[in-house]
Amino acid sequence: MLKLDSHASGQHFLHIPGPSPVPPRVLRAISYQTIDHRGPEFGQLGLKLISGIQKIFKTTQPVIIFPSSGTGAWEGAMVNTLSSGDLVLMYETGHFATLWKKLADRLGIKTEFISRPSGDNWRYGIDPHLIEERLLKDTNHQIKAVCVVHNETSTGVTSDIQAVRHAIDNAKHPALLIVDTISGLASIDYEHEKWGVDVSISGSQKGLMMPPGLGFNAISPKALEANKKSNLIKAFWAWDEILESNKNGYWPTTPSTNLMYGLHEAMEMIMTEGLDNVFKRHDRLAKACRAAVAAWGLELQCQDSSVYSPVLTGVVMPQGVNADDVRKVALERYNLSLGTGLGKIKGHMFRIGHLGDCNELALLGALSGTEMALKATGIKLTGSGVVAAQEILQ
Amino acid sequence: MLKLDSHASGQHFLHIPGPSPVPPRVLRAISYQTIDHRGPEFGQLGLKLISGIQKIFKTTQPVIIFPSSGTGAWEGAMVNTLSSGDLVLMYETGHFATLWKKLADRLGIKTEFISRPSGDNWRYGIDPHLIEERLLKDTNHQIKAVCVVHNETSTGVTSDIQAVRHAIDNAKHPALLIVDTISGLASIDYEHEKWGVDVSISGSQKGLMMPPGLGFNAISPKALEANKKSNLIKAFWAWDEILESNKNGYWPTTPSTNLMYGLHEAMEMIMTEGLDNVFKRHDRLAKACRAAVAAWGLELQCQDSSVYSPVLTGVVMPQGVNADDVRKVALERYNLSLGTGLGKIKGHMFRIGHLGDCNELALLGALSGTEMALKATGIKLTGSGVVAAQEILQ
Repeated sequence: MLKLDSHASGQHFLHIPGPSPVPPRVLRAISYQTIDHRGPEFGQLGLKLISGIQKIFKTTQPVIIFPSSGTGAWEGAMVNTLSSGDLVLMYETGHFATLWKKLADRLGIKTEFISRPSGDNWRYGIDPHLIEERLLKDTNHQIKAVCVVHNETSTGVTSDIQAVRHAIDNAKHPALLIVDTISGLASIDYEHEKWGVDVSISGSQKGLMMPPGLGFNAISPKALEANKKSNLIKAFWAWDEILESNKNGYWPTTPSTNLMYGLHEAMEMIMTEGLDNVFKRHDRLAKACRAAVAAWGLELQCQDSSVYSPVLTGVVMPQGVNADDVRKVALERYNLSLGTGLGKIKGHMFRIGHLGDCNELALLGALSGTEMALKATGIKLTGSGVVAAQEILQ
Repeated sequence: MLKLDSHASGQHFLHIPGPSPVPPRVLRAISYQTIDHRGPEFGQLGLKLISGIQKIFKTTQPVIIFPSSGTGAWEGAMVNTLSSGDLVLMYETGHFATLWKKLADRLGIKTEFISRPSGDNWRYGIDPHLIEERLLKDTNHQIKAVCVVHNETSTGVTSDIQAVRHAIDNAKHPALLIVDTISGLASIDYEHEKWGVDVSISGSQKGLMMPPGLGFNAISPKALEANKKSNLIKAFWAWDEILESNKNGYWPTTPSTNLMYGLHEAMEMIMTEGLDNVFKRHDRLAKACRAAVAAWGLELQCQDSSVYSPVLTGVVMPQGVNADDVRKVALERYNLSLGTGLGKIKGHMFRIGHLGDCNELALLGALSGTEMALKATGIKLTGSGVVAAQEILQ
């Protein structure tokens, strides 16, 4: 039998910023017996899933469900809308923006990365003025898409997507707006259609409270038009065949049936709580988490209070402390998983996830474990983060 | 709550040729809580999975696990080894060979489809002489790969992969041998390394007794060499980054953690039974199924007894009978799913799956349901298929 219980007793506290803990109802749903993905019962489920995920993206436009990770959904968005050698404008918000750029580079797309002149991008959100300025200079419309990350999972910064839309509109530029909301969707308000996003990209293992394995593309009519002209090669990711099969609730290739059972269940839970209540809960837990960090006397990775992430909090270590030492103690002594620093900030910070199926006591448990691990690593704290968080939550 | 129980009572008999029924142990494993895919526990699981799947492919060479369907694994095999405009030789064995050709066409690969002169490819296995003949004519080695399907799921024909290897060797041709064993692996003997296959492609939802959602590429050293020269664009599917991460049991992008729990469990079950015993069980059940079809007085889709598939049996309908009518009765009256005819043989035949977690009584139940559905559709049977199958099995 598979052994995943290396710890002696009690539950594991999974507080990385995704995969987030999966509710037992969802876990039970994915363990239902597999059915015929071409039979009538699956077709009915397929139609329900598509209309359900449209509500989550707040759109009436098509949403594709891929049997893939979020990276696959990135690739799906790009190969369906762009052509070889197209120039896209990307914005460096952190590690995931960087990975996405690397992916685009591999796909044969020309990428231009906007960075703040001060070079401290990984601590701030998107400055829409920099996008507007660049687009205004692009008078012959070489830039085919603006690609941005909604919630940067590596830093804990949530950028204002409407402001990016306005920047593009102000510049009267025809570029597509492609947004990674992998860790934003179903945790932070996100309006694919109202905000005028052309392709919204997401995955199952964050706000949707699912295991990893499903990726999403929500698609505007303008993106569908771009799809017809796009020459990047695509077969598995090709929207056209999927949209055709989706009309009847099916997929042209074999869908990930059991994860889809879980998606059905997770969406029902989210809609029962109410999307707005889900967002409020995330805001409140994040505020409590930041109060804890402040009480500890530690610095947040995010330096702009207007873009603090409701999904995760990045905690910067004092000089000379390796954040991964804190994480190791947290895991080995207290059965608590914290997120590692990624890319160039590895070792300098760690991340506390408070997304998906998270509540007050789960967060307070995680903060207690983090507090004890910080102390055990020899960090002098200025106060109790747990008490400070309780004050916000009670 | 998700409702998948439209039928009043008893278990569903899932006898499509994949997804195959998933054993309760595997279903329970995939419902374990999701863990940190970058934590030490997952790394250990990752290493176990990789060495386990190598044993299933009978190879010491690398095997990639994608969070995708089998179609994704097809795409992975092609974009990692080939270049734009490369010519590949494919062999028309049925619907899946046709779909694979279509995928290659979409990827910008030139495809040449070998068909038997008699035009009845969908009822026979691969004729290796036709491959050898074609390769011998290709004196300047324009053909970069020979792509064949091991077990053609649309017809119930299992081709001899060693004979294809010999054909390539006899022609002294350097083409890669790429084999789709999506529905062959873990049901029929398959030796990736000994048979000299360069890329073996498979999926989770067939002999591996798993839900759909994992795809595989087993990779020879020659295929790894080809990978370095291949110019088809690749990012999500790129082998190089995955192989690098796999050294420590991790993946560069988010792996499908919960399906991987199931893979661990399924491989343990298969190895406990013993791969050879699994193959013998499939042979025996298939023989019983064919005995039933003979007793009914119906024709098999496969016309060559040396290549009958141990995985599924294709049953051809008498003139004027729509196979999907039989399937509809089987599903609605007896809670039995049979596989539809695919592509050009839709309506003319149906398929009985006897793969994965299948045993004598499951098969006899399915045959009973099929028999009653055939009668209910007005087909005159020459005898009892169930009795004939029992005679083989008792």
